[in-house]
Amino acid sequence: MTTRQDCAALDAADPLAALRDAFLLPDDVIYLDGNSLGVLPKSVPARLDHVIRHEWGTDLIRSWNTAGWIDLPHRIGNKIARLVGAGDDELVVGDSTSVNLYKVLSAAAMLVRADGGASSRRVILSERSNFPTDLYIADSVAKAHGFELQLIEADEIGTRLDDERVAILMLTHVNYRSGRMHDMAAISRAAHCAGALVVWDLCHSAGAVPVNLCPSRAGEDAGADADFAVGCGYKYLNGGPGAPAFAWAHPRHTARMDREQWRQPLSGWLGHAAPFAFTPDYQPAAGIARFVCGTPPVLAMAALECGVDVFAQADAFGGMAALRAKSLALTSLFIELVEARCAGFGLELATPRTHELRGSQVSFARADGAYAVMQALIGRHVIGDFRAGDPSAPVPSPDLLRFGFAPLYTRFVDVWDAADHLRAVLESGEWREARFAARSAVT
Amino acid sequence: MTTRQDCAALDAADPLAALRDAFLLPDDVIYLDGNSLGVLPKSVPARLDHVIRHEWGTDLIRSWNTAGWIDLPHRIGNKIARLVGAGDDELVVGDSTSVNLYKVLSAAAMLVRADGGASSRRVILSERSNFPTDLYIADSVAKAHGFELQLIEADEIGTRLDDERVAILMLTHVNYRSGRMHDMAAISRAAHCAGALVVWDLCHSAGAVPVNLCPSRAGEDAGADADFAVGCGYKYLNGGPGAPAFAWAHPRHTARMDREQWRQPLSGWLGHAAPFAFTPDYQPAAGIARFVCGTPPVLAMAALECGVDVFAQADAFGGMAALRAKSLALTSLFIELVEARCAGFGLELATPRTHELRGSQVSFARADGAYAVMQALIGRHVIGDFRAGDPSAPVPSPDLLRFGFAPLYTRFVDVWDAADHLRAVLESGEWREARFAARSAVT
Repeated sequence: MTTRQDCAALDAADPLAALRDAFLLPDDVIYLDGNSLGVLPKSVPARLDHVIRHEWGTDLIRSWNTAGWIDLPHRIGNKIARLVGAGDDELVVGDSTSVNLYKVLSAAAMLVRADGGASSRRVILSERSNFPTDLYIADSVAKAHGFELQLIEADEIGTRLDDERVAILMLTHVNYRSGRMHDMAAISRAAHCAGALVVWDLCHSAGAVPVNLCPSRAGEDAGADADFAVGCGYKYLNGGPGAPAFAWAHPRHTARMDREQWRQPLSGWLGHAAPFAFTPDYQPAAGIARFVCGTPPVLAMAALECGVDVFAQADAFGGMAALRAKSLALTSLFIELVEARCAGFGLELATPRTHELRGSQVSFARADGAYAVMQALIGRHVIGDFRAGDPSAPVPSPDLLRFGFAPLYTRFVDVWDAADHLRAVLESGEWREARFAARSAVT
Repeated sequence: MTTRQDCAALDAADPLAALRDAFLLPDDVIYLDGNSLGVLPKSVPARLDHVIRHEWGTDLIRSWNTAGWIDLPHRIGNKIARLVGAGDDELVVGDSTSVNLYKVLSAAAMLVRADGGASSRRVILSERSNFPTDLYIADSVAKAHGFELQLIEADEIGTRLDDERVAILMLTHVNYRSGRMHDMAAISRAAHCAGALVVWDLCHSAGAVPVNLCPSRAGEDAGADADFAVGCGYKYLNGGPGAPAFAWAHPRHTARMDREQWRQPLSGWLGHAAPFAFTPDYQPAAGIARFVCGTPPVLAMAALECGVDVFAQADAFGGMAALRAKSLALTSLFIELVEARCAGFGLELATPRTHELRGSQVSFARADGAYAVMQALIGRHVIGDFRAGDPSAPVPSPDLLRFGFAPLYTRFVDVWDAADHLRAVLESGEWREARFAARSAVT
């Protein structure tokens, strides 16, 4: 049986442990919610103070040139591209995940319509358990283009792709509830074989698990050959609350959009070929730049860049591959400890045991009082979160205790301590106290 | 003739002068570009440091509840609503101006289509000299709904409204080039009489001139009775570079959207009636809340709130009415001084002399070397900006020197000194130096 000393030894032997120093973490908290909001990079306060006082306050409007504000969507985009297996100038940062999904799904629908002619491919296929905003946006795009959004379970994807009406498969790589991870390459290949485009949401992947969208550099693995992707900046990228998101399109699609002068619908001025010509007619910028829309939120972009830059430090220790190995070690340890130490308390693992199917989080289902259990755990400064189940779904889903393990800053002793507190909460029955039952606005 | 001493006396007698202390301004700069990027409120560095270190760094995910992050779009929205004559819970903050314009124009187009039946109203009418992003987004919305965007000159609005095909009139209240201000109430009335909806862009109005969209409080002036509006946070509201923008809809439209369960197309999860229920089906939140889309950018929102809060300080000195009076005094003085002191140097006033037609900026046309003249002026630390003309437009427009006069922090001596430097630049011919001709990326 693993002991706390064993965990401390793992930390002592962990070459990635030094990366924890890149963050300002509260001393009294075990933070296992980096899959909802990442922690604060140590470089942010000084960077933001500089951006605020010097770039904004002193240099003012000149900073669009002198501080390179105008390049932020591309400069940070290129840094994130390296984390998700995309090439240079293939990925841009700005707007929210929802807005970026609207852009790329709209572009995908345009491609389908342009190619389809009288084709009957008019279905956007996704998972019922996808993050809701993806489904809301997909439904909106479907309505706008005369498509239909159809929701299925994960294990139906293969068979449902045989339906010749499926135009676009839209999936989140790592499920926000279960932490189940799709095989991006295999599913993308299957979608293409079936004649469908594939759009990936990387919100729970970027910075957490290796992603290989489509390396454009010769000689590398061909990657997933995806069509479009989006992802968020405020989870594993540690970009701050509500940090800007990103959008990626395969170069074959942006090249075609170039040739045929297509726009995406959110054709704001900074996606124009010559924004400062101020011409009344929209001419989309070349390549991925047409997916930029309005003026970039400079303060939020600066914080995100600090978060993304930490990953460059991780390169010295093996980069995403090393982070992935640590992530799996952390999640495997948590599963082992909770199942051993909390046995008999009604927890049921909701995350795949198979490494290839697991993201960087662990969820446990519990039929009774899962919300209160998590509140009691938070009362002990062990911060995970609760996700309500849906008993009325075609496949009813349970209430979940959700724990994220960000390998940049989570220690093995944190895993041990969190499991220990969880056992204490369940064993003592303290979660039954009335104060833990009251719901907050944000759960 | 006004002297610099006269200007100093005006400053000494100006009750609003104290508001300048609410900002951190560089000592060596005369900043007349607040209509492009507002200055830094003194409260921002400490507020952002608190949000970063305490709310994000220490309280982490709990701040969605404890720091009220989830309410930011509404809380700041209600503060901006007071500045533009909107009621409580009628205005929300988030996303860029371009994205918000897409939301409200799409909603307007849906209304037209729902009401029109077989109607032939399928034209969105706007000004050729409108800010380009407005035209780009309107063109995109027009294409999506089978509408057509038609561009006209300002003086054609009245006659062109007689065209029964006009469905939506989309105007920017204060023109970004000339500073010409429309009569919002008269034009809104004319549009409604003609059977069209009216969408206002308040980017150069909010915080600069009184706006009275539609007071919902009984007993007040009925206001402009506009249909929809958007505006930006980083100009006269001093919310920081790329600050979030806002969207407003008349309550009669959001009430109808409630009754008929309509969404706007960017139906992200935070515009859902119950975002934390995580249901797969989108149910729009009631009222204006459906115009919220993704997760709010908390750092950027916090800075914007600092900027907006300065206006509450201005209330003690007469609020927007007093700010408007000062703005007109500043712009009138600049026109007087430049016309008197720079006579014979080829400057031609491009901003209306009539107060009712003037926003809070002054533009001068110059046929020769306007870009270099502005660069030379910036070399002397007098910061305005240059806007290129369009010689190929149906009504050719000239190159402009553009000067914004934000009444919260601009002094009468600044006006005098700016005019003095402009005279010196022109008289000395220093603008002809090669270094002033080289274009920057952002002009």
